[in-house]
Amino acid sequence: MHKIKDLQEIINKEIESKKMGREPFSLYEPINYSLSNGGKRIRPLLTLLACNLFSEKIDQAIDAALAIEIFHNFTLLHDDIMDKADIRRGKPTVHKKWNENTAILSGDAMFIKSYDFLLETKTEKFKEILQVFNNTALEVCEGQQYDMEFENRNDVSENEYLRMIELKTSVLLAAALKIGAIIGGAENADADLLYDFGRNIGLAFQLQDDMLDVYGSKNTFGKEIGGDIVANKKTFLLIKAKQLSSIEDKRHIDSYLMDKKTPKEEKIKGITGIYNKLEIKKIAEDLISEYHFIAMEKLNKVNVSEEKKTELIQLSESLLKRNK
Amino acid sequence: MHKIKDLQEIINKEIESKKMGREPFSLYEPINYSLSNGGKRIRPLLTLLACNLFSEKIDQAIDAALAIEIFHNFTLLHDDIMDKADIRRGKPTVHKKWNENTAILSGDAMFIKSYDFLLETKTEKFKEILQVFNNTALEVCEGQQYDMEFENRNDVSENEYLRMIELKTSVLLAAALKIGAIIGGAENADADLLYDFGRNIGLAFQLQDDMLDVYGSKNTFGKEIGGDIVANKKTFLLIKAKQLSSIEDKRHIDSYLMDKKTPKEEKIKGITGIYNKLEIKKIAEDLISEYHFIAMEKLNKVNVSEEKKTELIQLSESLLKRNK
Repeated sequence: MHKIKDLQEIINKEIESKKMGREPFSLYEPINYSLSNGGKRIRPLLTLLACNLFSEKIDQAIDAALAIEIFHNFTLLHDDIMDKADIRRGKPTVHKKWNENTAILSGDAMFIKSYDFLLETKTEKFKEILQVFNNTALEVCEGQQYDMEFENRNDVSENEYLRMIELKTSVLLAAALKIGAIIGGAENADADLLYDFGRNIGLAFQLQDDMLDVYGSKNTFGKEIGGDIVANKKTFLLIKAKQLSSIEDKRHIDSYLMDKKTPKEEKIKGITGIYNKLEIKKIAEDLISEYHFIAMEKLNKVNVSEEKKTELIQLSESLLKRNK
Repeated sequence: MHKIKDLQEIINKEIESKKMGREPFSLYEPINYSLSNGGKRIRPLLTLLACNLFSEKIDQAIDAALAIEIFHNFTLLHDDIMDKADIRRGKPTVHKKWNENTAILSGDAMFIKSYDFLLETKTEKFKEILQVFNNTALEVCEGQQYDMEFENRNDVSENEYLRMIELKTSVLLAAALKIGAIIGGAENADADLLYDFGRNIGLAFQLQDDMLDVYGSKNTFGKEIGGDIVANKKTFLLIKAKQLSSIEDKRHIDSYLMDKKTPKEEKIKGITGIYNKLEIKKIAEDLISEYHFIAMEKLNKVNVSEEKKTELIQLSESLLKRNK
């Protein structure tokens, strides 16, 4: 069985070795830049770990793992244009470092490259993994579309929000696992259980991200605390607070959202105060635990020895313990 | 054997039937809009005609034909953002009718859909057609990148220009034919000959487009005459003229390119005058004929009866006779 740290090293080495030196450099340089920008490589890790549940030959899954990582970085590249984000992992985003046209086109080329890597995968079930990949890619676009639409809406429901983060974040984690499992030779039932495991871990993970924005420490969270509040982001916390608050508190929330003059510290303090009063933190934590619990139930049912699941359990625990 | 007109009808019907009614509508509506916007459906036609050279069952190639048409429309959608084009085939472009973010994301979704259609193709050589599709898609991006770069360069050579139009336009026509041929059961040699046929027709077609911008009539060309001259586009005509002109004429050309105050009629007349003096029209026509000739040689060598090639010949003649 392979350890997470070793696999991460394999992934980073492979990514490094796949850098493109071909012309036009102006098209491929931003791709290399964006792939070098690190990150935790969670998705390709999931693919390799899922494959490893059923087979010792994880080499066969490395190309698919890279395809998923490249696809993920492509979505970040295009999302950053749409969200007008200037910084990604501490470095200028592609459309800032180069320009918007380069970011659009390099993103497109990057997306094509992800299919190239998928094509390299030696498996009899090639069409099956391509199908999972395609469906998921489309869902990720749908998630981004909903996310953008929600910015201009004030009536986003809890269910709509959960569906949005499922599409934008969870399904790709789920697909990364399922594709790895298929390549490893899993039965359909096990591949589907791993998909559900990933989907629920993804939901827990995204909700935790919402929570850490308010209740985390800058050290472990890695971003400024209160950023979502300042940006009026419709997070789970805000949607839940509006759902549970008194008419008076709702009015307070709305005035914070509308009034652009309130200093940001005051806004963060005010909204956090309402969250505290309504015990939103506990509600979010309960829901995170619930998704985590369902995820573990799914993983338990996967028909391989408990011992083999150690690394996957460890990875998901580490993903969900950034606040502890 | 199937006739062009019948095949065009089949393609349009299929595209109509494949429209997406799924949510979020805001993601899928621009895709439907962009696919409904007509065009001559040349690429899917080429796929069906190439398949038809080797098999009467053209049904098996329809999904791949649609994949190529959707991919083509996706590139137009993203190119229109990059080129800041407001109008496409007489209607507002997607980023004008909606907005830039919608155009980026709907484009991405459209691109994914093209792989979906490719996946539907029932052929044993699925990986092979995916490989051709992927390589070509990447080349088309490279072509667009060069095209954008050339805007800011004044030293683009004839060869660089020809390579750019090959990547941006020709390889997709070539791939459309090759993929159809593979699906129809062609031998590799024949599939490659058809690829080369398409590549050369594509080059001839694009050069003709450059020429018609100056020497066509608005009626048959469908665009304002002199548009490329007004926009300082580095077309074959301009590159050739700069290559052949005297120091004095070169200075004239450069001053037309630099001086933004010259009325556009005067600029068109001035540059056209230099083209006439240098007989650029004849040079371009000769090169078009040359590419056309090579294309026909390639088609001749394809190992099927002459009679079966009638429709392909007719289509390429009609593509290259817009000025007659």
